Amino acid sequence: MPNARSVVVFDAFGTLFDVHSAVARNAASIGPASVHLSEIWRAKQLEYTWTLSLMGRYEPFWRLTERALDQALARSPEVDPVVRDTLLTSYRALDAYPEVPGTLARLKARGARTAILSNGDEAMLADAVASAGIGGAFDAVLSVDRVRVFKTDPRTYALVEQEFGCGREDVLFVSSNRWDVAGAVAFGFEAAWVNRAGVPDEYADLAAAMVVGTLDAIR
Amino acid sequence: MPNARSVVVFDAFGTLFDVHSAVARNAASIGPASVHLSEIWRAKQLEYTWTLSLMGRYEPFWRLTERALDQALARSPEVDPVVRDTLLTSYRALDAYPEVPGTLARLKARGARTAILSNGDEAMLADAVASAGIGGAFDAVLSVDRVRVFKTDPRTYALVEQEFGCGREDVLFVSSNRWDVAGAVAFGFEAAWVNRAGVPDEYADLAAAMVVGTLDAIR
Repeated sequence: MPNARSVVVFDAFGTLFDVHSAVARNAASIGPASVHLSEIWRAKQLEYTWTLSLMGRYEPFWRLTERALDQALARSPEVDPVVRDTLLTSYRALDAYPEVPGTLARLKARGARTAILSNGDEAMLADAVASAGIGGAFDAVLSVDRVRVFKTDPRTYALVEQEFGCGREDVLFVSSNRWDVAGAVAFGFEAAWVNRAGVPDEYADLAAAMVVGTLDAIR
Repeated sequence: MPNARSVVVFDAFGTLFDVHSAVARNAASIGPASVHLSEIWRAKQLEYTWTLSLMGRYEPFWRLTERALDQALARSPEVDPVVRDTLLTSYRALDAYPEVPGTLARLKARGARTAILSNGDEAMLADAVASAGIGGAFDAVLSVDRVRVFKTDPRTYALVEQEFGCGREDVLFVSSNRWDVAGAVAFGFEAAWVNRAGVPDEYADLAAAMVVGTLDAIR
């Protein structure tokens, strides 16, 4: 275990908040296609962040989230599209993972500064932390909307340095998204990969300093 | 149908060459997981092109193709990893779609200049066109390796202008990858989307001028 860093930064969607909970919560009305629908929704959301960033055609994450859901529904003709509004409403109040409040309290107790760095726009992040009741636990909630490009562009990770006036070596970056860990490591942060599902590692040249099963291991 | 353009540029993998043919050709030895394996392989290959491009960490497409297959195999424990070398060898000699030679012959007959613009590195592209016997049909085979960044970065599409000394308005860009069509349209090319599978449209702000079922419609 490396030394404790003075600034601990969390990715939001997938890391603090379960992105599949929006669909899971409505699985009964969606039917057996719900898992596949949720996977397409997430995959398309990420594809759009990357391809539009490379084009220099940034659009806010909420708009991409809506479009990705539209594509997922169009590819799932067995799902009644009437669920669209319900799913989008659920996405504004995703479940936080159960160990999130305890993890944040522990970090504050040892004097760490804490932040979110997310692809989500400001309004999405405000809704997410409010509905999870964890808004008070962060020193900063940083959206890539400030630089109008998505992760893994280095300008997004640089927001942390700018916010805290710290060096890259002061930061532990925590994400469940392996590509996000890779981007943070490429930028110069130490990173922890939250691998809840126990999937195989990738991005071997951009390795996580820690691989953990839940946020309980983040100290 | 818009006016015929003087330069017609094709994406390679997925458009001229069937990327799933490497797995399909070996489906009997892979077993029932072969379709899923091929989908993960392709999805990871694309993810790596986008996330590494945004990091400024370009690596040649062949290396990413190998890593993506390793990840796909690691996620498919029911598949014997001994197929790895066979699949990689097959990827160097993918099937061209059957209408490719006729399409290229028609374009040459009307005096169009033709090119490939691909994420593939030079050696991959040389192998692909040689094994399909279509190398003589192109005025240029352009790899993004020249600019060390992947599509949808505009520097990749700019290679066409530089090669032919033409304007953007002289180019018809043809791709089966909807995100590639979007990137080409954002750059200023007219684009045709080859939608063989009849999947729903996306990237509404970056629309294709033509949506075709096969390359036969490209004139």
